[in-house]
Amino acid sequence: MYTHDHKIRVRYADTDQMGYVYYGNYAHYYEEARSEAIRALGMPYKEMELGGIMLPITRMNIKYIGPAFYDELITVRTILTEMPGRFIQFKYEIYNESAKLINEGETQLIFLDANTRKMLHAPAFLTDRLKPYFAQADI
Amino acid sequence: MYTHDHKIRVRYADTDQMGYVYYGNYAHYYEEARSEAIRALGMPYKEMELGGIMLPITRMNIKYIGPAFYDELITVRTILTEMPGRFIQFKYEIYNESAKLINEGETQLIFLDANTRKMLHAPAFLTDRLKPYFAQADI
Amino acid sequence: MYTHDHKIRVRYADTDQMGYVYYGNYAHYYEEARSEAIRALGMPYKEMELGGIMLPITRMNIKYIGPAFYDELITVRTILTEMPGRFIQFKYEIYNESAKLINEGETQLIFLDANTRKMLHAPAFLTDRLKPYFAQADI
Amino acid sequence: MYTHDHKIRVRYADTDQMGYVYYGNYAHYYEEARSEAIRALGMPYKEMELGGIMLPITRMNIKYIGPAFYDELITVRTILTEMPGRFIQFKYEIYNESAKLINEGETQLIFLDANTRKMLHAPAFLTDRLKPYFAQADI
Repeated sequence: MYTHDHKIRVRYADTDQMGYVYYGNYAHYYEEARSEAIRALGMPYKEMELGGIMLPITRMNIKYIGPAFYDELITVRTILTEMPGRFIQFKYEIYNESAKLINEGETQLIFLDANTRKMLHAPAFLTDRLKPYFAQADI
Repeated sequence: MYTHDHKIRVRYADTDQMGYVYYGNYAHYYEEARSEAIRALGMPYKEMELGGIMLPITRMNIKYIGPAFYDELITVRTILTEMPGRFIQFKYEIYNESAKLINEGETQLIFLDANTRKMLHAPAFLTDRLKPYFAQADI
Repeated sequence: MYTHDHKIRVRYADTDQMGYVYYGNYAHYYEEARSEAIRALGMPYKEMELGGIMLPITRMNIKYIGPAFYDELITVRTILTEMPGRFIQFKYEIYNESAKLINEGETQLIFLDANTRKMLHAPAFLTDRLKPYFAQADI
Repeated sequence: MYTHDHKIRVRYADTDQMGYVYYGNYAHYYEEARSEAIRALGMPYKEMELGGIMLPITRMNIKYIGPAFYDELITVRTILTEMPGRFIQFKYEIYNESAKLINEGETQLIFLDANTRKMLHAPAFLTDRLKPYFAQADI
């Protein structure tokens, strides 16, 4: 299992008139968090794209447990529970400043050839970096 | 069952550098569509809020089937398959200009007292308007 | 002079915890309005882009006169006061449901070759459509 | 003069199909930067709001000099060139990773009583913290 924690400060722009973070903005938090999780492996997503691989989203599920507020420094935990194959599945847990779990989600992304937009398998430069985090049995 | 169709023109702002609508923006389309679906019942969401009822989201699931592109006039179908109780569950289907289904989703919202933020039951002015769309057996 | 009015319903997503439309979202309203203003001339911006012309923004000025609120049906007036050359200058006036002017802005866009990203002159298919709206003296 | 530098990583969400940061998103960068500039003075904007002061935007001007790209770590410099009175004027300069100036802007905000929404003067707790940065002649 690979996990990575990333802190994000809630912007005023992220709130709505209910005084909470607007429900659509969690997708942005997930994006920033998984991008940093991949960067921490030594392979920025940007380079993957420059290398001809696109990763559009195929599924997203979100469970809104509690609100996030303006100016809070939330922690987004990104979790990879299995090695990517044709898809890569990220799980997320968001904690507020009081370390309370306020949001859970998951996104499934698909590896595509940026030119042909055909399906690919997870590239070796990514799976090689992930192998140390997964016990033999997991792979 | 109650269904309502609403058309949305994809903004440049909605796209990302992949040339598709950014995955986080579908939540905005859902919001606009369910807001219009409720308005068509004769009770704008705004008035519900002015009447002291808040409807924060508790769950959202999205299945991204195909891309939406800049300037496309997409159709968002909002579907209520059951009468709301403590929660209201909206389903969505998005069709592109070629009438191809490109996105499916659902959101669950909870009725809260805007002042106390305590749980409420769906208000009569909403359920009364919905009853004609549901067969006796459904209620 | 060429003017075009376009109505936009304010989304919940557009508001912030002040209860007003977030100041950054007016740029989105301007985009939608100028896009419809160009479409009304018979030449959607999308086709201009497919034809190899890009129109990035070079300047934007906004004067926030009064707030816009959730669910308001605002009117965005797009105004072209002079024929485009290397640049095209759009002016905007936003009116709320009470016909009160709440926002004024302008954006300057530059014509670029989408491949070389070099400066171009406004294409004939745009200027030809605009000529009828400008008196001889204006051109 | 008071200046403060803040780094922001460009999100995928911030880009559009041109491959640049969408012009409307600079307002979000400005917000985050001025919020951090105020925090660095020891008075988070959030506390100002909790203390009954609102700061809506009255004007914004932006000059787009060059593009910002996905994943770039841009630096937003926030500059206060004069002591706030009824208004506070922030200037911004954005530099890309190559230290090239790519964007300049300014926003004017007005001090309002959060309850009455009437105009206020800049509060002492803010001006007191700013005085050391301004020569006698500036005040």
